[in-house]
Amino acid sequence: MLSAILEKKERLVIGLMSGTSADGIDAALVRLTGQGLSTRIQLLAFDVLCLSPAVRERLLAAMGPAGRGNRDLCLLSSYLGELFAHACGHIAQKAGVPLAEVDLVGLHGQTLYHHPAPEAFPGFTVTGTLQVGSAAVVAERTGLTVVSDFRSRDMAVGGQGAPLAPYLDFLLYHHRARGRIVLNIGGIANATSMLADSSLEAVRAFDTGPGNCLMDAAVTHYTGGKQTCDTDGRIALSGKIHRGLLEALLRHPYFPLPPPKSADRTTFGADYLRAALAVAPGISPQDVVATLTALTAQSIGTAVLEHCLQRGRYEEMILSGGGAKNPVLVQGIRQALPKLFITDADEYDIPGKAKEAVLMAFLAHETILGRAGNVPAATGAKRPVVLGSVTPGSPKGLSGE
Amino acid sequence: MLSAILEKKERLVIGLMSGTSADGIDAALVRLTGQGLSTRIQLLAFDVLCLSPAVRERLLAAMGPAGRGNRDLCLLSSYLGELFAHACGHIAQKAGVPLAEVDLVGLHGQTLYHHPAPEAFPGFTVTGTLQVGSAAVVAERTGLTVVSDFRSRDMAVGGQGAPLAPYLDFLLYHHRARGRIVLNIGGIANATSMLADSSLEAVRAFDTGPGNCLMDAAVTHYTGGKQTCDTDGRIALSGKIHRGLLEALLRHPYFPLPPPKSADRTTFGADYLRAALAVAPGISPQDVVATLTALTAQSIGTAVLEHCLQRGRYEEMILSGGGAKNPVLVQGIRQALPKLFITDADEYDIPGKAKEAVLMAFLAHETILGRAGNVPAATGAKRPVVLGSVTPGSPKGLSGE
Repeated sequence: MLSAILEKKERLVIGLMSGTSADGIDAALVRLTGQGLSTRIQLLAFDVLCLSPAVRERLLAAMGPAGRGNRDLCLLSSYLGELFAHACGHIAQKAGVPLAEVDLVGLHGQTLYHHPAPEAFPGFTVTGTLQVGSAAVVAERTGLTVVSDFRSRDMAVGGQGAPLAPYLDFLLYHHRARGRIVLNIGGIANATSMLADSSLEAVRAFDTGPGNCLMDAAVTHYTGGKQTCDTDGRIALSGKIHRGLLEALLRHPYFPLPPPKSADRTTFGADYLRAALAVAPGISPQDVVATLTALTAQSIGTAVLEHCLQRGRYEEMILSGGGAKNPVLVQGIRQALPKLFITDADEYDIPGKAKEAVLMAFLAHETILGRAGNVPAATGAKRPVVLGSVTPGSPKGLSGE
Repeated sequence: MLSAILEKKERLVIGLMSGTSADGIDAALVRLTGQGLSTRIQLLAFDVLCLSPAVRERLLAAMGPAGRGNRDLCLLSSYLGELFAHACGHIAQKAGVPLAEVDLVGLHGQTLYHHPAPEAFPGFTVTGTLQVGSAAVVAERTGLTVVSDFRSRDMAVGGQGAPLAPYLDFLLYHHRARGRIVLNIGGIANATSMLADSSLEAVRAFDTGPGNCLMDAAVTHYTGGKQTCDTDGRIALSGKIHRGLLEALLRHPYFPLPPPKSADRTTFGADYLRAALAVAPGISPQDVVATLTALTAQSIGTAVLEHCLQRGRYEEMILSGGGAKNPVLVQGIRQALPKLFITDADEYDIPGKAKEAVLMAFLAHETILGRAGNVPAATGAKRPVVLGSVTPGSPKGLSGE
């Protein structure tokens, strides 16, 4: 089966991603030609399949160091597999491509926990990461070959397993004459910086800290789940920044860490927020959201300033992810970084919202070609490695069964 | 890399297994030629790498529906990956084969939880299974391509994900003129029955119930961990069977279930034992072990009688697994099944203790060849499927890094 895929000149690949906010499955169908930095990517379809509030709640409860146990994990992983498989059918239909003509699926899965800090065990020091969404179920339901578990191999060579975006960022945005920073604002915000005319090996990338996760958590809390994000920054606009709270929040130990560094939803969890809120008793929900928006903008600004602008010449910052659509947050970032020309990824070939799903398709494609997909300068890995595991599809004749 | 493996006429494959008792890693190195039921298997080396009591305790604590949470799961999986990788190096050295000449690793991993019973989720009914022991770590440390997660795909087509042994059992023991039953007594006992001159599709296989798990648990408990099994059945020999306790134990709801059925360590856990012991207050440890040994023998006997002997003509039963070395247990089985000629797998080409590790090597080999590895008649799956996920090794030049 694999050899049939490898003989093709161009390949149709589905990329699937569910981010730390667990609000939906991003699905992209792309046509890929070439390989490595010569890959040409044509986006045929993109969509977000929303997860129901009940499923989202169940996923959020299963996250973090404790989680909900083995039973919940097993069943949730198979269930998410069904939803990811459904997303494959949906995106192929949207693109007008029969599913059987798709060559490959890149399945990130849903991260439930990520532990990049080395931990001593007898004889070995280990790290670990946990993504759910059964590749076996996706391969079986779709008949397609699936590449999954992209982060573990990078961690096996000492990397943080994140960020994985820099390879694609470099392919899409590296510029001969302009230093560029790509900032993706999902639940967590991550930055990829590329000096003009530099090499992939010189890319610098790291998570700056919270993206939408804190703002989303506060809005969900205060609206009793009726809203899950601050659409257009309207709530933040109606509130005032509370200086004491902002300062307390900025004391999080993640912020002063040098890159490479990576964070997840649990890095900036409920305990952190609760402790900081103690300095501002009786603060209004609007002021909390305004302050969290300011914190997010300021932590992004400070990180980009210290780890990028003070180390080289950059002209442009390209924003993507849900946070790029929050005008209050974007305005805060502009104020923190007045020297950068700030643009939106939607002005480029691949819309910002589709980037993570396209990344999974691209990385799966590299894996099948036997090519490394991590960027050691970004993850801290000792060397480039081929990422993921390959779950075979069904023989083509059977896939419609 | 895969194409280099496929071009070979014979392949060296390592199989790795850690059973439900979590007392050691079984490692086998085999030379395989041919494919499917024409495969020829030559065992070059076999060994058991004992797990330290601390690691074993940690694994046992991580098993069952609750487990120990996401953090423990992630780290334990990476740590076991290191131990499995170490086992690869050890078994290659024992066979006198450079690790770089090995073509493939079949990694079962350590089962922490197995949930074959369908559970309703919104829109889908799901099952699930959880094996740990990171394939990425094994592939990275050894440089070898690894096939892992063998059970999920069978479950994705409605199978129980177990037993997987029947395919190899059929290859090794199917006989033109004799009906044979293969009984492996690990933590759980499983039976594979093959009528004379029958096909693979007609194999019947299922878990009979407890193998060594109950006897081991009792011995471990009463000796405070100084002994973990009843060597040569000495404790059982010094005790008497308590009829009331035996009857209470036989009331477990697993026993009357029709095959296909599968059990795991948690099916026969501490709660079950504790509840049954209530009928025998003040019973001596020796009598408990004698009774558990009788229960194990009797549940095996009844299951084989009802599900095999009453349905066809069988002449021989071949025993393997740790329990085959417990003379009291074997005597109990002989008494329960007086018409069968009972032999030990060690009298055949592959010693009984090596069978599960050899099975993993054989199944990985079938996967790489694009061949199905499950036996639907045994697992209840809707059809044969290619099992597992393939994690690429390192390019050969780099594997010694």
